[in-house]
Amino acid sequence: MQQYPEPLDRLIQQLRKLPGIGIKTAQRLAFHMLKRSEEDARQLSEAIVAIKTQLIYCEICGNITDVSPCHICQDPDRDGTTICVVEEPDDLLAFERTREYNGLYHVLMGVLSPLEGVNPEDLRMAELFARINNNDIHELILATNHTVEGEATANYLARRLEGLGIILSRIAYGIPVGGDLEYIDVVTLGKALTGRRTLSQE
Amino acid sequence: MQQYPEPLDRLIQQLRKLPGIGIKTAQRLAFHMLKRSEEDARQLSEAIVAIKTQLIYCEICGNITDVSPCHICQDPDRDGTTICVVEEPDDLLAFERTREYNGLYHVLMGVLSPLEGVNPEDLRMAELFARINNNDIHELILATNHTVEGEATANYLARRLEGLGIILSRIAYGIPVGGDLEYIDVVTLGKALTGRRTLSQE
Repeated sequence: MQQYPEPLDRLIQQLRKLPGIGIKTAQRLAFHMLKRSEEDARQLSEAIVAIKTQLIYCEICGNITDVSPCHICQDPDRDGTTICVVEEPDDLLAFERTREYNGLYHVLMGVLSPLEGVNPEDLRMAELFARINNNDIHELILATNHTVEGEATANYLARRLEGLGIILSRIAYGIPVGGDLEYIDVVTLGKALTGRRTLSQE
Repeated sequence: MQQYPEPLDRLIQQLRKLPGIGIKTAQRLAFHMLKRSEEDARQLSEAIVAIKTQLIYCEICGNITDVSPCHICQDPDRDGTTICVVEEPDDLLAFERTREYNGLYHVLMGVLSPLEGVNPEDLRMAELFARINNNDIHELILATNHTVEGEATANYLARRLEGLGIILSRIAYGIPVGGDLEYIDVVTLGKALTGRRTLSQE
């Protein structure tokens, strides 16, 4: 049986390491790249190296950036008294896409997970406490994911920061916009019920 | 709104050019690459360039290879009197994976498609006719896809090669192994009926 030529096989193995890419998809992608021009292949190749060589993490908030401090931390129009704490840089970018938030961020670079050996000192928590000590922070929005680890991390931060006169808030969980009650899982539905808001004040 | 930093945005745009990769998948892949080590990124990057710089098409059969003629064309144990004609190099590799075939191949590099301006001279047909003239070919297996263009290409070749004393065959279409009759489309079912084979000869 003919094996793939070595360079093709190597690319397929490399592509398989990516999340959600199985052997079939890796083969399809590799054959597609083979058909594209050498210029196209080079552009993709260079773009992959560039994100590792040209991007850094912001020294203040931990955002992915090409300058540090990042554009958000440097922006004088941002509300510097509110910090939204997220797990990963992509969470930060997801909030930015909403265009609803004008405060600053703090990326933890993970969540507490004793089972996997992730303790407070492995996350960017000391940096967060320093920011709170050195700046006039009014509100801290705990926007870790709604997973066991995300909740534990939010609870840990809430306990550590009690009594400092800072408003600690947690993002709301409930029915997603456009979601059909019939198909919502019970945990979410329960959260939506307990988190209900009063509409009229009679 | 914060844009992605330029290198990240560039990688996402490059990844979106790949087949089956939408904006969400491109973002997920880009963030994954960002988290992996620089060494990993470099390996993937180099593998992409390598398939364009190190791989060539076999001068005889059109297979993707790192040496020309390719290993199949050079193999003395292969049956040189049978040629399987396929559209693309990946079709050739699919046949190789079956381990059922011991003849040679000829890759057309496409199919006839007058609407898209693909004519016989745009495919590797002259090379095929030259191989037939210069070698003792017993059988030509027309293994183009079962699409309008694939059928038209097989028919064109069959007409062109009539009367040369070469057996011209077409691969069989029918129910895929494990396929459930109930869920097979009518065209395939019709092909399976007309292509039926006699089991007993009484």
